[in-house]
Amino acid sequence: MTEKILQVGIIGAGRIGKVHAENLAFRISEAIPAAIADVNEAAARDVASRCRISRVARDNSEILQDPSIDAVLICSPTETHADLTIQAARAGKHIFCEKPIDHSLAKIDLALEEVKKARVKFQIGFNRRFDANYSRVRAAISNGEIGVPNLLHIISRDPGPPPIAYIKTSGGIFLDMTIHDFDMARFLVGGEVDTIYATGAVRIDPAIEKAGDLDTALVVLHFKNGVIGTIDNSRQAAYGYDQRVEILGSKGAIATENRYSNTATISTASAIQRDLPLNFFMDRYTESFVTELQAFVHAVLQDKPLPVGGMDARIAVAMALAARQSFEERRPVRVEEVAHIEAQLA
Amino acid sequence: MTEKILQVGIIGAGRIGKVHAENLAFRISEAIPAAIADVNEAAARDVASRCRISRVARDNSEILQDPSIDAVLICSPTETHADLTIQAARAGKHIFCEKPIDHSLAKIDLALEEVKKARVKFQIGFNRRFDANYSRVRAAISNGEIGVPNLLHIISRDPGPPPIAYIKTSGGIFLDMTIHDFDMARFLVGGEVDTIYATGAVRIDPAIEKAGDLDTALVVLHFKNGVIGTIDNSRQAAYGYDQRVEILGSKGAIATENRYSNTATISTASAIQRDLPLNFFMDRYTESFVTELQAFVHAVLQDKPLPVGGMDARIAVAMALAARQSFEERRPVRVEEVAHIEAQLA
Amino acid sequence: MTEKILQVGIIGAGRIGKVHAENLAFRISEAIPAAIADVNEAAARDVASRCRISRVARDNSEILQDPSIDAVLICSPTETHADLTIQAARAGKHIFCEKPIDHSLAKIDLALEEVKKARVKFQIGFNRRFDANYSRVRAAISNGEIGVPNLLHIISRDPGPPPIAYIKTSGGIFLDMTIHDFDMARFLVGGEVDTIYATGAVRIDPAIEKAGDLDTALVVLHFKNGVIGTIDNSRQAAYGYDQRVEILGSKGAIATENRYSNTATISTASAIQRDLPLNFFMDRYTESFVTELQAFVHAVLQDKPLPVGGMDARIAVAMALAARQSFEERRPVRVEEVAHIEAQLA
Amino acid sequence: MTEKILQVGIIGAGRIGKVHAENLAFRISEAIPAAIADVNEAAARDVASRCRISRVARDNSEILQDPSIDAVLICSPTETHADLTIQAARAGKHIFCEKPIDHSLAKIDLALEEVKKARVKFQIGFNRRFDANYSRVRAAISNGEIGVPNLLHIISRDPGPPPIAYIKTSGGIFLDMTIHDFDMARFLVGGEVDTIYATGAVRIDPAIEKAGDLDTALVVLHFKNGVIGTIDNSRQAAYGYDQRVEILGSKGAIATENRYSNTATISTASAIQRDLPLNFFMDRYTESFVTELQAFVHAVLQDKPLPVGGMDARIAVAMALAARQSFEERRPVRVEEVAHIEAQLA
Repeated sequence: MTEKILQVGIIGAGRIGKVHAENLAFRISEAIPAAIADVNEAAARDVASRCRISRVARDNSEILQDPSIDAVLICSPTETHADLTIQAARAGKHIFCEKPIDHSLAKIDLALEEVKKARVKFQIGFNRRFDANYSRVRAAISNGEIGVPNLLHIISRDPGPPPIAYIKTSGGIFLDMTIHDFDMARFLVGGEVDTIYATGAVRIDPAIEKAGDLDTALVVLHFKNGVIGTIDNSRQAAYGYDQRVEILGSKGAIATENRYSNTATISTASAIQRDLPLNFFMDRYTESFVTELQAFVHAVLQDKPLPVGGMDARIAVAMALAARQSFEERRPVRVEEVAHIEAQLA
Repeated sequence: MTEKILQVGIIGAGRIGKVHAENLAFRISEAIPAAIADVNEAAARDVASRCRISRVARDNSEILQDPSIDAVLICSPTETHADLTIQAARAGKHIFCEKPIDHSLAKIDLALEEVKKARVKFQIGFNRRFDANYSRVRAAISNGEIGVPNLLHIISRDPGPPPIAYIKTSGGIFLDMTIHDFDMARFLVGGEVDTIYATGAVRIDPAIEKAGDLDTALVVLHFKNGVIGTIDNSRQAAYGYDQRVEILGSKGAIATENRYSNTATISTASAIQRDLPLNFFMDRYTESFVTELQAFVHAVLQDKPLPVGGMDARIAVAMALAARQSFEERRPVRVEEVAHIEAQLA
Repeated sequence: MTEKILQVGIIGAGRIGKVHAENLAFRISEAIPAAIADVNEAAARDVASRCRISRVARDNSEILQDPSIDAVLICSPTETHADLTIQAARAGKHIFCEKPIDHSLAKIDLALEEVKKARVKFQIGFNRRFDANYSRVRAAISNGEIGVPNLLHIISRDPGPPPIAYIKTSGGIFLDMTIHDFDMARFLVGGEVDTIYATGAVRIDPAIEKAGDLDTALVVLHFKNGVIGTIDNSRQAAYGYDQRVEILGSKGAIATENRYSNTATISTASAIQRDLPLNFFMDRYTESFVTELQAFVHAVLQDKPLPVGGMDARIAVAMALAARQSFEERRPVRVEEVAHIEAQLA
Repeated sequence: MTEKILQVGIIGAGRIGKVHAENLAFRISEAIPAAIADVNEAAARDVASRCRISRVARDNSEILQDPSIDAVLICSPTETHADLTIQAARAGKHIFCEKPIDHSLAKIDLALEEVKKARVKFQIGFNRRFDANYSRVRAAISNGEIGVPNLLHIISRDPGPPPIAYIKTSGGIFLDMTIHDFDMARFLVGGEVDTIYATGAVRIDPAIEKAGDLDTALVVLHFKNGVIGTIDNSRQAAYGYDQRVEILGSKGAIATENRYSNTATISTASAIQRDLPLNFFMDRYTESFVTELQAFVHAVLQDKPLPVGGMDARIAVAMALAARQSFEERRPVRVEEVAHIEAQLA
């Protein structure tokens, strides 16, 4: 009995493309990184050499047209995601696409339409769903361990702001950073959001204000099922990456703590202390990147439904757009004002 | 050198009156509970006997007219607070009044006007300011240990809802429960709130809805200094009284945990667990009730400024009224819409 | 129904005498500190004034011969405990005696003999049994929450060594410091110790070596029921008073943590930290001093058995003597070699 | 610049051989598992297929005689370690050997002599040294973060006893289980042990007693530098694998906690609880197995000293033999009584 090994093409050899390449090469036994392409060919070559990828493609189309390639990972810049999704779908490739598909709901709809027509599988890179903490919280809600959820809090803070150049093209904090938390909120609660009240400020770097963005945000989510939630975002937590969640339910509560490289506590004459939490999203979420790709590979190989798909990608963007509108108009905004969304959580 | 012992009269022998009587009798050496009055004379007699109080007064006026009484504690029902404050001020007694003075800002203003005229001292019973956790957080902010505060979260949940009869006269969750958190927010941040967005729901008991109240509330505070805060209230946390706070500042964060009767952790084949936190506000805040009264007694005996006064009492009520209006009108409401408040935090 | 109030005489107005006086005056409603005596009359006068004690006795006999005094607290230096116990017993007073009764088992036996003859109640000041943490551990063992106990660890470290003058008359670390832990071990496990292996060193201050004592000790306890335990003592933990215990049983484990003045955690760019634990035994064990005295007062007033009595006092001393012998002879020593002890734990 | 890839032969395809094969295949980019051998050829074939190992060798000598193989991992049963070490050394292969080399110091010495003669590198599989917790503790000691170490406690408990058949050939708890902790004690303290006092009992399964072994052990270590340490071993902790360490130093203390799959805390009406810690040594120490092999590969490729070598292997066995003798003779035993050991910690 020889097991089928999934042949995967990687489009984009940047930070996240490299992570996925390494995971395909060294952590996932059912798949092989068969080819990689990047406009920066040196970067592609570098990742290929490190991850034993036999082929560096001249361009994306070489990957998309290669019949031996079963699936592609779209790890290029956001503005290319929708077009590449369309091309890959038309080429019959299964697709794993980094978030977001696009900042425009119209373009997202076009891309998802093609995916549907082509009957290929499509997974969006909301990796945090695969994190052991968050999947434990989801399990607690599903199992009724804390009863019916009533109040949700998400804390999601970066260790430091990205470069201003990045911020300028990021689509703003709600589309770039909060988008993960919008997905997390839907995932954990298992329901859709009706209305969003968003507020925020520039508290860290005036250059972020000049770039037309916020660095501190507070979002209130009114779910259709009556749950009330908050998302707390900051571009800078001095102590590092802060990723926690807390839900109060009718029978109790569940809360997660950060992750640490070690569990040592040092007690001296000045304080009881421990080292800072894992500081970078790639360290904090290392395992979730492996797990999400494993889930994608399994689902494709066994022709099973994907855990997080196109509609999840679309709804998170719609929520971000509603949050932006709420912030600008200083009033609660219904997500449906922004886009007609069909509830779809399995 | 004989130290002056403060002679204190207690008006109201209910739950909180009894706590203060015991603290005066058994925990505070510089004061003596000299007399107590209650419309329920048996209750007054019971507290007097337990706390070695030599005199049970026929009525409040007997206490207010006794020249040997230096100060009074107003522990009667809320609707009597303003009138008793006025009478006590006119009688020249220093006043410790349970929160709130009244639900009407106009009546509060009348009472505070008399206090001012009479030049007596007036302290409001925001005991949580004196809790070791919250005063540690305040110290961290004052000392700049976490830099400039940016985001604040207050979790404040009761173990279970009060009787419906109580809820009907409570003034609603914002005036009855959140009022402590409004004061806490101002105290911890050291600044005044500009705008409030409040939302809420009935998630626990439909009878609370019938009584015209909420049992679950989420309030967003926009401070004048740019801090954004949230207050999370629930009338029922299955695991007990949940009282925590968390502040993110420019240089770090501070967060408090609940208090427990013991620190034992039990590990078995099913879980790693500990006993529930202190469940009742009188157990959780025992020491803060002693400390607030000690502060009052010291300030009166040494003619020093009080740590929490009339304006603090007034502002918290104004915030509660703004929250109620925000909830009803589903929009952010400026506190100044409700009442003109002069910033006054020392 | 008027409740009987126990009239208590206090012998010794030093550090611990003052604590008990304050607790009788301000924390325990069923007893009154009626008289106090100390060779240092100024100290007695000071405590009397602070605790509203109406009488400062000329000497101990004035207290012992006063028929209105029901019970005495012996809080004088250790070398006087046995004689005062004998005198108090002969005078028909119930006795609460600070630990230890004496360093000599023979003198202890004489004193306990008189107590027995006089049929007065006798409680020894092993306050830690009344601490919420340790009584929770004892309850877990009694209730079978962790099954049959197998391994025990006691950590018991002081924030700093006492004055050398004190060390010289202390009887050595095993009789002065470990004695509390010997009692704790018996109390928690609910069984008697067969053999002790003790080791130790001077790691903190050479002056302690000169004084013929140790400042660091490690004791292995072999219980008759097969449990193996360790006691870890240090005269100096830089971070403060460290008092923990851990038991492994057949169905799980229980472990306690230190106590802290607040639960705040501060996260900055350098560490996640909290303030030091309660640093002084009087802060750490405040409540246990109240509870042990309350237990004594209740038992006397209601003529009930005492929770910790003469035999407990004797056994702990015998264990300390066995430990000292083990250290000196570098071999395990049976407690029975030192003294014939009848097992007696209820 | 092409990097040299280390060609590694694996001897033994059992539990630990499989772990190392996977790590070589999927986690360590500078090495390749080139061949594997096992008397159970099916097991070897299975691992080879899973880990993309191109060759399944007929026997060990095929691996040892293959000039393309740079290094071997000895993962076969303990009784073969010494002979295979000798053969591999004579064949000029670098050696990574699972612990222990042998239960006989004489055989260990023979093997290490051959290693020395052949000038090949030799690393012993004390993986825990490479665990993030323990290396953090070692760093704290090295950096003087807690001053001079004074007291050490190691807790090392298995989730459940191994099969009786295994126990019968294991050499006993001290050689099989405590041996890891003996190495840990030396590693953390950075010094050698002078005298050992060991005690123990059968508390879990009478069959273990029949097999001539203990299931519960308590070892006291007297270090040459004056540190006193304890090791607490149990074959069964109901809540799972318990691996902690705690050191008190002159300036403070450091303590580690267990590792958990998630950080979620669930609070309900019955308790505040979290899931059990990582339960199996392969889950708990996953990363340390990768890191130790990475260290071996790096040291071989760059011809650098190994972090844990032959003398470390030998000393741990000598300590186990001294512990066994102490237990049998009920007295402290000097390690030098058992074997002349040259201190060797770098």
